[in-house]
Amino acid sequence: MNDHVNIYKDVSLINKKSKAAFKIISLSNSNDRNLAILNTAEIIKTNINNILAANEIDINNAKDKNLNNAFIDRLMLNGDRINNIILGLINISKMDDPLGCELARWKQPNGLDISRVSVPLGVIGIIYESRPNVTVDAGSLCIKSGNTVILRGGSDSIYTSRIFTQFLREGLLSANLPSDTVQMVDSTNREAVSAMLQAVGEIDVIIPRGGKSLVEKIQKEARVPVFAHLEGICHVYIDSEADIEKAIKIVVNSKMRRTGICGALETLLIDKKISKNVIPILAHKLRAKGCQLKGDEETILIDKDINLAFDVDWKTEYLDAILSIKIVDGVNGAIKHIEEYSSHHTECIITENKNTADIFLSKVDSAIVMHNASTQFADGGEFGMGAEIGISTGRIHARGPVGAAQLTSFKYIVRGKDQIRD
Amino acid sequence: MNDHVNIYKDVSLINKKSKAAFKIISLSNSNDRNLAILNTAEIIKTNINNILAANEIDINNAKDKNLNNAFIDRLMLNGDRINNIILGLINISKMDDPLGCELARWKQPNGLDISRVSVPLGVIGIIYESRPNVTVDAGSLCIKSGNTVILRGGSDSIYTSRIFTQFLREGLLSANLPSDTVQMVDSTNREAVSAMLQAVGEIDVIIPRGGKSLVEKIQKEARVPVFAHLEGICHVYIDSEADIEKAIKIVVNSKMRRTGICGALETLLIDKKISKNVIPILAHKLRAKGCQLKGDEETILIDKDINLAFDVDWKTEYLDAILSIKIVDGVNGAIKHIEEYSSHHTECIITENKNTADIFLSKVDSAIVMHNASTQFADGGEFGMGAEIGISTGRIHARGPVGAAQLTSFKYIVRGKDQIRD
Repeated sequence: MNDHVNIYKDVSLINKKSKAAFKIISLSNSNDRNLAILNTAEIIKTNINNILAANEIDINNAKDKNLNNAFIDRLMLNGDRINNIILGLINISKMDDPLGCELARWKQPNGLDISRVSVPLGVIGIIYESRPNVTVDAGSLCIKSGNTVILRGGSDSIYTSRIFTQFLREGLLSANLPSDTVQMVDSTNREAVSAMLQAVGEIDVIIPRGGKSLVEKIQKEARVPVFAHLEGICHVYIDSEADIEKAIKIVVNSKMRRTGICGALETLLIDKKISKNVIPILAHKLRAKGCQLKGDEETILIDKDINLAFDVDWKTEYLDAILSIKIVDGVNGAIKHIEEYSSHHTECIITENKNTADIFLSKVDSAIVMHNASTQFADGGEFGMGAEIGISTGRIHARGPVGAAQLTSFKYIVRGKDQIRD
Repeated sequence: MNDHVNIYKDVSLINKKSKAAFKIISLSNSNDRNLAILNTAEIIKTNINNILAANEIDINNAKDKNLNNAFIDRLMLNGDRINNIILGLINISKMDDPLGCELARWKQPNGLDISRVSVPLGVIGIIYESRPNVTVDAGSLCIKSGNTVILRGGSDSIYTSRIFTQFLREGLLSANLPSDTVQMVDSTNREAVSAMLQAVGEIDVIIPRGGKSLVEKIQKEARVPVFAHLEGICHVYIDSEADIEKAIKIVVNSKMRRTGICGALETLLIDKKISKNVIPILAHKLRAKGCQLKGDEETILIDKDINLAFDVDWKTEYLDAILSIKIVDGVNGAIKHIEEYSSHHTECIITENKNTADIFLSKVDSAIVMHNASTQFADGGEFGMGAEIGISTGRIHARGPVGAAQLTSFKYIVRGKDQIRD
């Protein structure tokens, strides 16, 4: 009980420091914020060995806990990965200032000059699993957009998160900005997460980064708004008027480039008019890459080595080298399947017919809809946002990749000439 | 217990019908939606007597319950008020389509053509007190923006709400759009509100319209996102470089035009350099209009007939002919007071010095910041949004007046030329 009270008090204190820092960082100028980001890059560069040493503690602890190799690989830093983090910081520092943008401006008949101008969002809470780069990505995107951030990383990366947080804070100080712009909840107590999720009025938005069970728990418990996606059950539809060669290239990339990311293809829909031509070639290519195939009854009639897919398959985000295939009746059949099973993350149509593409692009209600491109592009970096803090499938405020611009709110500025209202 | 189960089931059924209607209205074209709105106006026009009769039942019930005159006045319809409702509908029908707008478009170095396009938000729940116009305003704004709406009005206006809901549904049907785009929770059971507030995944956003206690309850209970403002503790600051005559005109209008609206002035801040000149003239003008004055210790030294204000006064939204006055040290003193006491709704500076105005406009963190204009303009209609469904002081998604454009989300459309990701 005392622990319970203490962790809530600790988190609340962090939140209050964050709100105090927000009053300063939200009004700071972009040169200072960019300098803080560049200085952090510099500090990281001169401390690579210290970072590797901190990371090694996390790695050794993970090995002692017999965590699996994939987990340890995600957790591990090396020179290349740190260089990518540094490059990310430099990129973010070069991006346009997302604050003070005139989003709209108009004049009313009575002469009132009204504009809508972007302002920082507030105090952002990030709850993430043990991925070392998230600390720096999230921290720098929040600095860029004049927000403050409270980081709560997974306990298995706590040494790595701690050293990166420290460098972000040093970067801020070196630019005369408040170090509390970036804070870390330095506790492995799980109640710290609950305290953050209930901090209405102290934290403005929570962004979870991690697997489905983390996000599910957060969406269920949170009283604070959440930007998140639960899963990416992404679809590609190959239309009868697709260029088959290009289609196969896009499907193989969408599925196999990296199977573990949320933008990876999970269910392939094929127009019945071309299924007999496409499936044999595609199955061959995908099997050669190590992909396991499942299909509906019509699909397995075409290729007997494809296993039968069950209803659960259409609802599953494999995040693995497995693809479910369904034969549908044209673009409307594809849209119908997507409406029923999609997680509204990313869906793609492959066709040479622009009208069919337009039907798909307008009717499919997902955060990202694509025409003739790999679903693996569903990513803030690939969208030109510099980096992303997450991807949202919600409809409120942010949808799709969440970059610096999505971490802003706005206010109305009304310039008058002494008008009064009748 | 059975009643409890039933009302949750009833509301859930309404929510599901709303989601089904959303699939159609969200893809409808704007001519049809505008036609539905215009037809509703026409139906209202030919049914004025029926509306007045329904409203009379509500009025009589309210009188039987000994509700006060102000309440009954807000509840009452007459020919003029119905005409205003009709004009509102015509205005909304003429506004630009908020859907399908290209909010941004850019090309990535690899040739991907990315655009962000506005789409409807989803299922909107409106919980409101007994104001008859809200049914039509909210219903028509949701139709305009391709959303569906679930209306839960106060029990004291149920006959009036019911007949307006019926006419909105008839208007939709006459334009071949689903009548379930507009539904009403036709129950005075308070648990219906709780059921709506907990409908995560069924209702996308809740917008309350009503007094502080209603909004407070909703913000506390809601699991669904809420667009709202709790109160409007609006400030006007008269700078030492203000034109005194204009300042007095703006202050009197901001306070006294209508004292009961959220954009009404509650606390006046005056630069100490001019307080001795301004307060006597202002006090005279305001008293002549029936306004009661309170002031800090310095203020009452200037005018002994002003009552002393206590700390609670700076935190009070009077919504009445009462004004609290504080003398501050320049624009920074004003900003400091606003930071501490404002509800972040609307604040205004009166000054002829553009630099001072710019400091105020950029530093004050409220949904609406004004220069030389009455705070009574803080209103969607006055902002040119046609009508408003509410005003939000939150930072997520909608801030300030919420019109049709604020009831949209967006999606990304990515047009490729067979790009795959490295």
